[in-house]
Amino acid sequence: MTEFFHVITADRFLECLGGFPRLAGETVPLDDALGRTLSRDLACPEDLPEGARSTVDGFAVRARDTFGASDSIPALLTLGPPVLMGELPRFEIGAGEAAPIPTGGFLPPGADAVVMVEYTNPAEAGSIEVTRPVTEKANVLERGEDALSGTTLLATGKVLRPQELGFLAALGIIEVPVYRRPRVGVISSGDEIVPMDRRPRPGQVRDANSHAISALVRESGGIPTLFDIVPDDVARLERTLGEALAAADVVTMSGGSSVGARDLMLQAVSRLPEVELLAHGIAIRPGKPTLLARQGENAVVGLPGHPVSALVIAQIFLAPFLRYLQGAPLAKGPAGHRVQAVLATSVHSTIGLEEYIRVRLERDGEGNAVARPVFGKSGMLSTMVRADGIIRIPMNAEGLPGGEVVDVIEF
Amino acid sequence: MTEFFHVITADRFLECLGGFPRLAGETVPLDDALGRTLSRDLACPEDLPEGARSTVDGFAVRARDTFGASDSIPALLTLGPPVLMGELPRFEIGAGEAAPIPTGGFLPPGADAVVMVEYTNPAEAGSIEVTRPVTEKANVLERGEDALSGTTLLATGKVLRPQELGFLAALGIIEVPVYRRPRVGVISSGDEIVPMDRRPRPGQVRDANSHAISALVRESGGIPTLFDIVPDDVARLERTLGEALAAADVVTMSGGSSVGARDLMLQAVSRLPEVELLAHGIAIRPGKPTLLARQGENAVVGLPGHPVSALVIAQIFLAPFLRYLQGAPLAKGPAGHRVQAVLATSVHSTIGLEEYIRVRLERDGEGNAVARPVFGKSGMLSTMVRADGIIRIPMNAEGLPGGEVVDVIEF
Repeated sequence: MTEFFHVITADRFLECLGGFPRLAGETVPLDDALGRTLSRDLACPEDLPEGARSTVDGFAVRARDTFGASDSIPALLTLGPPVLMGELPRFEIGAGEAAPIPTGGFLPPGADAVVMVEYTNPAEAGSIEVTRPVTEKANVLERGEDALSGTTLLATGKVLRPQELGFLAALGIIEVPVYRRPRVGVISSGDEIVPMDRRPRPGQVRDANSHAISALVRESGGIPTLFDIVPDDVARLERTLGEALAAADVVTMSGGSSVGARDLMLQAVSRLPEVELLAHGIAIRPGKPTLLARQGENAVVGLPGHPVSALVIAQIFLAPFLRYLQGAPLAKGPAGHRVQAVLATSVHSTIGLEEYIRVRLERDGEGNAVARPVFGKSGMLSTMVRADGIIRIPMNAEGLPGGEVVDVIEF
Repeated sequence: MTEFFHVITADRFLECLGGFPRLAGETVPLDDALGRTLSRDLACPEDLPEGARSTVDGFAVRARDTFGASDSIPALLTLGPPVLMGELPRFEIGAGEAAPIPTGGFLPPGADAVVMVEYTNPAEAGSIEVTRPVTEKANVLERGEDALSGTTLLATGKVLRPQELGFLAALGIIEVPVYRRPRVGVISSGDEIVPMDRRPRPGQVRDANSHAISALVRESGGIPTLFDIVPDDVARLERTLGEALAAADVVTMSGGSSVGARDLMLQAVSRLPEVELLAHGIAIRPGKPTLLARQGENAVVGLPGHPVSALVIAQIFLAPFLRYLQGAPLAKGPAGHRVQAVLATSVHSTIGLEEYIRVRLERDGEGNAVARPVFGKSGMLSTMVRADGIIRIPMNAEGLPGGEVVDVIEF
């Protein structure tokens, strides 16, 4: 039996992941860019708006013509033609003139402010009374006020949300440079594993890992490819790994949790050409028997055999790694948000292992968030299903006492 | 000009949304079900595991044969044939017998526990020494311990994460009943609006709303369909609305912010057959001129004309509504997580309006989260781009003082 000969800390494992280069950029249509990350700075191609626009319904005026106007002594202005939507006014606003303008209308030349319709009264034919003064630029969105030509609009690393897509559309930027999505080959191996749509014979079990891992890859922006289940045969595992590496950026493997199954995985990876083994074992629980190797710019992640351990490791390392490859900063743990909660019961931990405890989020009588550990054997997928998130116990702690406030990473 | 004749509170608006029925269920392949919501309870079809399995590498034994075993007085057991992965052992473990078993192997009949390999020593040919006792069921995952046939596996309303998909795959559930995704027709109107890929003539602007709203619909699990931009013509708007309603569950409209544009929208909606106007105006800022109508089971949401207001309303009401239609509970506000932060500056608010303030999340010198209001005219999309989230000021507050701890809803 092969001992773990290359066990490293979780922090060191993360550094190894950070040693892989980010993926190249690609250009995608704006409407396909939701959630993607900019791979270079975007410069603003033009002023937004392209000219001064009214932010209210009212009258375009010269501000100085309204100075001192009040209900008792209104300013009387001569009406010009109305500003129409979709057209740039061709007339000018001269001294003592006002033009009806709708919200969003472009200001006619000469006008430098807009009086809200609420502060005007119709007067004798062809004129209006203004009952409040306006200052220059009042109720006006100036040229370039939303975005100024030549400035940096959005910087590399920005994740595109609906508002960024709207903003870019307004500027006519109809395709954007974003990091490529990682292609991930997903391999399950084991003599006992059958596809989920086949009835297992006695002693066989269905492949759960491929489907959970593929979903996690998709959730992390990656494109999973499932390979056929590989039996416990080093040559066949090596061949499938080679095929997967030729087509993918990252390959995940999951096999049995027995020492024999782990040996087989290690042998198959070691036989790959120009492969560098970065880690064989992490000082973490669950998930110690995790393997990381590098071939060129591609990564091979050998997941632990227990489905629960495989999923925890995938949440803690694979998901952030896939996001990192697409431009995000690299950080341990699920991408989920952190919430603070009171630990319901004490949990014990082994010094020297970073430990991750599955918890369920509940509310106590006063509505405070409570994190209740979900215990269960490591082969039980139902414990992951019952959990709302995980808490982390640092390497050098013996555990956490009940009542302690903990950060729950939701998943 | 038409006055707002049907202004309601934000809470009442939410109730109106909750009056629409949820969408019907549909069956989708398991691998397509990530993030979808179960539309009915799933019963467990079989026991998982189907028989007792070992959770460690070791030896399958009868627990009673190890009682009292220690380093000094080990129990001597006769070796049976090894348990192989993928096969149900056909031999029985009798008194005084032990069979090598890998992690995940099915226990042979007669065995009721597994001794870890670490607590055994090889002995004379054909036997082993056991140096620690095991209790019954030690290191064994029992039949049905992960999931028990006939019990409810997952309940209606459960959102499917990677772990649920793995769990269902393990049980051979290869397709699942989930709420249908809402089809959403997205209409932009306005004489001044041109498609984003066309160069606006002077006085025209590009369509930003359609792209931002479509992205938000996708983010919320919906399937957006963009319609051609409709000019300010009530008959054409009515016709496009009718087409959209025939093909979609929800139709969103955005037009100009002028009173004229809003009137047009109201007229077009009012002319639809069998339409019920539920709201025309919400006591909220930004986003007061929002319209909600119902035709059969379909909803029409008339968004405010300012792109910022439209997006805020879409985040506060449209996104949760689309999730509600797919089985989620209905709650105001973006689906994003809430984080607590200290308000950097005082903000003022109008009594009688529920107010939403865009904020940027920063860190102060001590690492505490600070919410800094993002100010800017309501036509400026860049304010949404600069914001990380929003805070809510209740209807009856005059504002919030700087230094107050606020809930920031990230978007």
